[in-house]
Amino acid sequence: MQRKAVVLYSGGLDSTTCMAIARADGFEPYAMSFAYGQRHSVELEKARQYAPLIGATAHQVVEINLREIGGSALTSDIDVPKGRDVDESIPVTYVPARNTIFLSFALGWAEVLDSQDIYIGVNALDYSGYPDCRPEYIAAFEALANLATKAAVEGKRYRIHSPLIRLTKVEIIRRGLELGVDYALTHSCYDPDPAGRACGRCDSCQLRLKGFAAAGIADPVDYAPQNDG
Amino acid sequence: MQRKAVVLYSGGLDSTTCMAIARADGFEPYAMSFAYGQRHSVELEKARQYAPLIGATAHQVVEINLREIGGSALTSDIDVPKGRDVDESIPVTYVPARNTIFLSFALGWAEVLDSQDIYIGVNALDYSGYPDCRPEYIAAFEALANLATKAAVEGKRYRIHSPLIRLTKVEIIRRGLELGVDYALTHSCYDPDPAGRACGRCDSCQLRLKGFAAAGIADPVDYAPQNDG
Repeated sequence: MQRKAVVLYSGGLDSTTCMAIARADGFEPYAMSFAYGQRHSVELEKARQYAPLIGATAHQVVEINLREIGGSALTSDIDVPKGRDVDESIPVTYVPARNTIFLSFALGWAEVLDSQDIYIGVNALDYSGYPDCRPEYIAAFEALANLATKAAVEGKRYRIHSPLIRLTKVEIIRRGLELGVDYALTHSCYDPDPAGRACGRCDSCQLRLKGFAAAGIADPVDYAPQNDG
Repeated sequence: MQRKAVVLYSGGLDSTTCMAIARADGFEPYAMSFAYGQRHSVELEKARQYAPLIGATAHQVVEINLREIGGSALTSDIDVPKGRDVDESIPVTYVPARNTIFLSFALGWAEVLDSQDIYIGVNALDYSGYPDCRPEYIAAFEALANLATKAAVEGKRYRIHSPLIRLTKVEIIRRGLELGVDYALTHSCYDPDPAGRACGRCDSCQLRLKGFAAAGIADPVDYAPQNDG
């Protein structure tokens, strides 16, 4: 029997590559997504559609309401910034404690599945200024997991895998292509148009487009026509 | 202006005492409860009713669905054990990663409120075998909080307060009475009857009743008639 791993999965480029790596590492991936009051539901629809196509054994969507907590452009009425320099400090799209909340649910599901492995596609280089994407943060969560759970008390050892953490976007794309990832089955945009086409201008689109450009291949997803005037 | 603290609040004896301690420590308490697929909703109704009466500045109920994750008698169809010896190992009422999930949401709310203080009424002595009630677990979450957040990156220091962690149930009750807590405004039972009366036999009721007995005072809440035949 294959070992199970919980893979945090948004339907985006990074988490899809992360799922392919979990499979290459010999795990059966259990994909976990979150409905957290995102302003657009396109991301989740795509995740539901793509999860089985990219090889998830099961897919769980956890509903939580971060909108009540507020404090972020992704969950409240602050405008999503366009055309900003992605090297700036922590952006308003930062969701308070988001990865901590996501990893906590992943830990709960892992314990129920009798799995000790969690994959998260965070990235410390192209990380857009989020503190909860740094290696020291991941190490701290792993230490927590090994104190928090019944399985840990019983001697099992949890591992939080963040295989993309030191890769650039172009390295992530190259690794995914090696593993056969079809990037047409990914969705990264924070602010797609009503037809579901990527905006091409938010932080996430900018990083993605830069990555494909550097890899010297065309991004297979659809972008909305750009109006820069 | 008073400093704010997020207080994890179930409506029970421990978290109500914890809120009184947060107030005595000089904080304005922001109470946070969770609707997590509990089999009975009495606990939450009582929490909503009692929170303003015991001095919470605000009360937020976060809806999450731990039932989908499964693995616990409190959220699935496993029977709640009655009359078990509370000194046994980890019980089936253990909810996977529960305190980790709760503290993660508290951290998110604290960051939005510009608060660096979180209170949790966990208890390592009468702890019923839960691994996420131990001092080393709380210390690990505090370390995580100080890496996870924008505020921490900007130099603020989070503190996870667990003032009950080394107290026995009788010491908790005595401390609460000193601070003027009205224990009629608390609810501890895992399995109340339809009239909302405590069962008197679940782990939580047993620990509570032992505490009041040891304190030499009557528990002011209503218990269902006991059938031991």
